[in-house]
Amino acid sequence: MSSVIKKIMPDTSTSSPLALGIDFGGTSVKLGLVRDGQLVTRGTPIPTSGHTQADDLFADILHGIATLRANAAPVAIGVGLPGPVDHEAGIVHELSNVPGWANVPLRDQLRRETGLPTCIDNDAKAMTYAEWKFGAGRGGRNVICVTLGTGVGGGLILEGKLFRGSRNGAGEIGNVSIDYRGVPGNYGNFGAVEKYVGNREIAARAVELYARAGGRARSLDECTPLALEDAARAGDAIAQGLWRETGEMLGACLADVVWLLNPDSIVLGGGVAKAGDLIFTPLRETIAARTSRVFSERLQIVPAQLGSDAGLIGAAALGVDQAAAAA
Amino acid sequence: MSSVIKKIMPDTSTSSPLALGIDFGGTSVKLGLVRDGQLVTRGTPIPTSGHTQADDLFADILHGIATLRANAAPVAIGVGLPGPVDHEAGIVHELSNVPGWANVPLRDQLRRETGLPTCIDNDAKAMTYAEWKFGAGRGGRNVICVTLGTGVGGGLILEGKLFRGSRNGAGEIGNVSIDYRGVPGNYGNFGAVEKYVGNREIAARAVELYARAGGRARSLDECTPLALEDAARAGDAIAQGLWRETGEMLGACLADVVWLLNPDSIVLGGGVAKAGDLIFTPLRETIAARTSRVFSERLQIVPAQLGSDAGLIGAAALGVDQAAAAA
Repeated sequence: MSSVIKKIMPDTSTSSPLALGIDFGGTSVKLGLVRDGQLVTRGTPIPTSGHTQADDLFADILHGIATLRANAAPVAIGVGLPGPVDHEAGIVHELSNVPGWANVPLRDQLRRETGLPTCIDNDAKAMTYAEWKFGAGRGGRNVICVTLGTGVGGGLILEGKLFRGSRNGAGEIGNVSIDYRGVPGNYGNFGAVEKYVGNREIAARAVELYARAGGRARSLDECTPLALEDAARAGDAIAQGLWRETGEMLGACLADVVWLLNPDSIVLGGGVAKAGDLIFTPLRETIAARTSRVFSERLQIVPAQLGSDAGLIGAAALGVDQAAAAA
Repeated sequence: MSSVIKKIMPDTSTSSPLALGIDFGGTSVKLGLVRDGQLVTRGTPIPTSGHTQADDLFADILHGIATLRANAAPVAIGVGLPGPVDHEAGIVHELSNVPGWANVPLRDQLRRETGLPTCIDNDAKAMTYAEWKFGAGRGGRNVICVTLGTGVGGGLILEGKLFRGSRNGAGEIGNVSIDYRGVPGNYGNFGAVEKYVGNREIAARAVELYARAGGRARSLDECTPLALEDAARAGDAIAQGLWRETGEMLGACLADVVWLLNPDSIVLGGGVAKAGDLIFTPLRETIAARTSRVFSERLQIVPAQLGSDAGLIGAAALGVDQAAAAA
């Protein structure tokens, strides 16, 4: 078997090791083989919704891993999951869309079943790690990563390392408040920024603004980030104002992060970030206006580069780097 | 001369080195000899107000240093200053209450004149370093220090090190916003928390609340933190409400810091912090309510221990530690 592997991966000795990444998303679990920040083989995604219990999903993931290993020899596994992950103990506290996933010792289960060094981590941290090692934050010493979607995820690279905080919770930018008397967040913080710039909130505000303007009514489904981007570019003043306001609210939140951490760059990913200058222009202006020059004049605010595979790539990189550090 | 020094400091060989700390305050420059977090000799404070130019103040400081060195042999000098300090280049950008202090290469001037290894840093960072090495944050891995006065200063210990950010600006908690549409801060951030919980703002709100209540009118000078503490303890409902509100506003700000950095402790110092439970109770309750359990259940929120000498002690400790690291 080792001769077959050698044929498939002739450069094993000169390039960095192959790792297996797993990324738990809202609707599916993605798997793939990753080397040097490149997804070299993508496995078939596993839907999360069809599983009535944790064991079924786990069995499907093991099958997906075995398929990927049939023709390749990854040296480690890295897993990214939404929500709180006990990275040190290797335990997933909860997985809201899969019944039965509560305090699952996922890392040790995977280690036992695969025989490979395995690490598990929060998916926003995996994304952050990928963008810092291979993407838009490459080479940065203090890098803030933010990903915009239904919620707002975040991760911090501080002094050239993924910063975890005391219980692997650091970087929860989505729960940082922009208004202490504002809308309640999912975890008790009034004014949590994700309740202002999350996809659903942007859509709801768009529906309201269109209704108030008295023109054609829009449904929530019509007000996706992509549709609002198209509308803004076609000259729709409501959509344009919405992007500006979104950039200003996110900018207010990130200005606070800048005052606190004085980073050299901020990397912005996720659906909303694809709107380019529509979001980046008000974002940059707001951060510059709300901070002083020492903080803003050399600050880079840039779009993420690795797209929707960043979590998978980062999880794999964490897997292989942690295995190397432990060896 | 060395025999005299030995008599005065018989334990030189077994204890840590003696350092000279200098702390630039609003009204005076404090100097002292520090060993192991203890102020062993206090120099005569030098008033900042009598000096019409930077050179005069600098000459007085050199005289103060010489006086302290007459009977002791400090191995390094550490200086803490308010405002932005370029720690790496050793330059003080500005010193608002002393004419002519703009872009002063203070570190190299002191090195040249004294022959001692010298470092300069922001005073809130010096305070943070002291509380972490010798005070309330001792032994912590991720410690947030906040000092409440006219402004709100802050410093961060992350992964067991003083965290500076990319340009020594990190930890500016006073400029973190609690309301993105709130009161303008000194450096452009609307809702900057120091505009809500600074001594002057607390006094102004007290004056207003007493006036609105229709009882005896109070002047700003009557509404010091100490007077408001006494009033609250004597059962004054307005003062009690004011402390609760102050704790809630500061707590809202620190909840954001907790979401971002997941620290193991928060150390609170300065005048307002002396009010004890009046501020700590609403502060702890607010942070617990606004964060989730992973973040709050093991979080310590404690008063600072080193009082008004923390800056001096921390500056000296930074001086000696940086000299050792460079050696």
